[in-house]
Amino acid sequence: MKAEIIAVGTELLLGQIVNTNAQFLSQELAALGIDVYFQTVVGDNPDRIRSAIKTARARADLLVFTGGLGPTQDDLTKDVLAAYLNRGISIDKPSMEKIETLFSSRGIHMVESNIRQAHTIDGAVPLFNEAGLAVGNGLSEDGTHYLLLPGPPREMKPMMEGPGKEWLRSVLGHSDPLYSRLLKFAGIGESNLEAQLIDLIEGQSDPTIAPYAKEGEVAIRVSTKAPTESEANRKIDATVERIKERVGTFLYAQQDATLEEEVVRLLRASRRKLASAESASGGLFAELITSVPGSSGEFTGGVVTYTNEMKHKLLGIPMSQLEGIGAPGAVSESTAAMMAERVRELADSDFGVSVTGVAGPAESEGKPVGLVYLGIAERGKETVVYTTNLSGSRTIIRVRAVKSLLYRLWQALTK
Amino acid sequence: MKAEIIAVGTELLLGQIVNTNAQFLSQELAALGIDVYFQTVVGDNPDRIRSAIKTARARADLLVFTGGLGPTQDDLTKDVLAAYLNRGISIDKPSMEKIETLFSSRGIHMVESNIRQAHTIDGAVPLFNEAGLAVGNGLSEDGTHYLLLPGPPREMKPMMEGPGKEWLRSVLGHSDPLYSRLLKFAGIGESNLEAQLIDLIEGQSDPTIAPYAKEGEVAIRVSTKAPTESEANRKIDATVERIKERVGTFLYAQQDATLEEEVVRLLRASRRKLASAESASGGLFAELITSVPGSSGEFTGGVVTYTNEMKHKLLGIPMSQLEGIGAPGAVSESTAAMMAERVRELADSDFGVSVTGVAGPAESEGKPVGLVYLGIAERGKETVVYTTNLSGSRTIIRVRAVKSLLYRLWQALTK
Repeated sequence: MKAEIIAVGTELLLGQIVNTNAQFLSQELAALGIDVYFQTVVGDNPDRIRSAIKTARARADLLVFTGGLGPTQDDLTKDVLAAYLNRGISIDKPSMEKIETLFSSRGIHMVESNIRQAHTIDGAVPLFNEAGLAVGNGLSEDGTHYLLLPGPPREMKPMMEGPGKEWLRSVLGHSDPLYSRLLKFAGIGESNLEAQLIDLIEGQSDPTIAPYAKEGEVAIRVSTKAPTESEANRKIDATVERIKERVGTFLYAQQDATLEEEVVRLLRASRRKLASAESASGGLFAELITSVPGSSGEFTGGVVTYTNEMKHKLLGIPMSQLEGIGAPGAVSESTAAMMAERVRELADSDFGVSVTGVAGPAESEGKPVGLVYLGIAERGKETVVYTTNLSGSRTIIRVRAVKSLLYRLWQALTK
Repeated sequence: MKAEIIAVGTELLLGQIVNTNAQFLSQELAALGIDVYFQTVVGDNPDRIRSAIKTARARADLLVFTGGLGPTQDDLTKDVLAAYLNRGISIDKPSMEKIETLFSSRGIHMVESNIRQAHTIDGAVPLFNEAGLAVGNGLSEDGTHYLLLPGPPREMKPMMEGPGKEWLRSVLGHSDPLYSRLLKFAGIGESNLEAQLIDLIEGQSDPTIAPYAKEGEVAIRVSTKAPTESEANRKIDATVERIKERVGTFLYAQQDATLEEEVVRLLRASRRKLASAESASGGLFAELITSVPGSSGEFTGGVVTYTNEMKHKLLGIPMSQLEGIGAPGAVSESTAAMMAERVRELADSDFGVSVTGVAGPAESEGKPVGLVYLGIAERGKETVVYTTNLSGSRTIIRVRAVKSLLYRLWQALTK
């Protein structure tokens, strides 16, 4: 079954709100094995809503509307669809009772327009609104199915998850649900990953393998339709094995986990602790690690030693290492090593990591923008420093430096 | 002019990402006086992209595409549009040079597919991608205009704000250009700000005053069309005065500056320095401040003292203050004050700031999630601690705590 999601609301076209409903509904429909081919946003205008219905009918079997069910004169979805299908509108009794009860309990005068929220298209299945007043609708005609949901997410979600899905299942009859698994990679670029898997991506149709774009992350999704989850897993496992043979060293998770979550998970599993000393990344590493809930058990703390004085005061790095003729300087392999080692000792942790480099926009110490040293000091082992030459804006260099450090730390934890 | 935004990407139809680009572009187009009547999302499928073009052409004069310009075989926007318009595709030299330079500087082998990112439709104006590799396109044919932008927001936004808008202005032709000024607010919520200005927002048509939604920020945009910039400024100034009479204390910038940029600017102007001590915010404050280019002159450094041991070791806060029966604890007004004071002394800076609280998901020291203390220690002045009770997820509480601290610091700097 092919679906189109139609969000109705001028506020979306003005950019006042983000269409998060489309994302939620797309995920729900995919889980039911329904393919979403288009998402449309149309304003609160009867002619344009009608035209959107006409366009969608020609290319989809299921039209999922969200928005336009409220009490105001701008809420037009039911009126326009009823007129389009030459159907009347009547009052859904349970919804009307809920509206009346609410107004009388609050002692507020009910205005005429509130009745509109109990409107139901003749012949449609009314979908009760647990979290609000506007009743939803599900109806089928000439092989096209229409699902009408409210616009506010806190009303739309429970209706979709409850009576909406129930109605959809009755319409679908049976067809296997879609299962998918996200594979997350680090230390490899998106196009390089794709180049290594291109024959599988293009040549394999079940399970399908598709690149998955997510800001600053590299991932692919393996999907298949199957009658049971265990059968789906068996098929997906086999495909994942083929992928691992080629790029297994970069695969850090088979679920939607971030690299920082994986690092914290591995630290926890091995009962080890981490501390950080940052210069160029200005606290971004600490911020990412501590964004993981419960990371206080694994991350003892960090320092952001932005100036040489602070590197000296907080970490005890000699000024002669940082400044003066012949000194290696703040941006150097040896300073990166010292930062990692000193913060590890200071925090009495198992790992100490460091970032020192030039994030730009201007060079520093005569060293070029993008030169970043990443240090990893591990208790009882020799300290390792990675030299990277990163490109991009100041923000991007900082993000890449920290992601790269997380990848190296993940490697050290999985070795 | 009527516009339709077409986002290309199967990941949107699968609900893997939210279409924030549609919101951004809707706002930008509205500011140019262009009405957006439809937003469409279509997958990485040539037939369906073609059908989306056909549908949009029938109902809009301007088609703004985002996505599908990347290196992979799934990136089809240029190929499909070129075929639809019977045009060829050639290589944009400056973009090709950027790609080659990048790969050779990194010493990475360039795969064939990367060349696709330099593709430009014959007869189109190439729009250089400052933040990435895929070149954009602007072209007009038979009264319909096509603007092709990349999908990743960090590439799409600068292209739209720079060469994209320039091309759109050339297409819009005569009519007075639109001038607008962004007013940025801190310390006041979006709905509260709107309530205080509602009569101006709804009743005034020139200059127009419109709320401007930006993740985690509160802003409004004042816009007017005028033959010259000075005339536009005169009109905008008068409106800004009316706004300042009501909510002037919350207005921190009349341009698209972040609060952290304003804080760094004010520190620089008064030759003062800042250091930070963070617990609950895990380095986010330091990260935000150091994201401002050149902030190393104003920000000496910071500590992320996530555990009590680190608060004791790095800042010298007595363990009796942090733990034990009757101790105020890590999350307390007095600890916030000590953290701010000690880090200020340690860094020998003019300001020391601190964040300590409970970001969640679980309570800590028997103190509720959302309770956050913000400390500001200023050389020669009495330390001030602000107590806040924040709501939201862990991430949101951290962001709100740091934004609130930035606002208090901005107040201290403008007093």
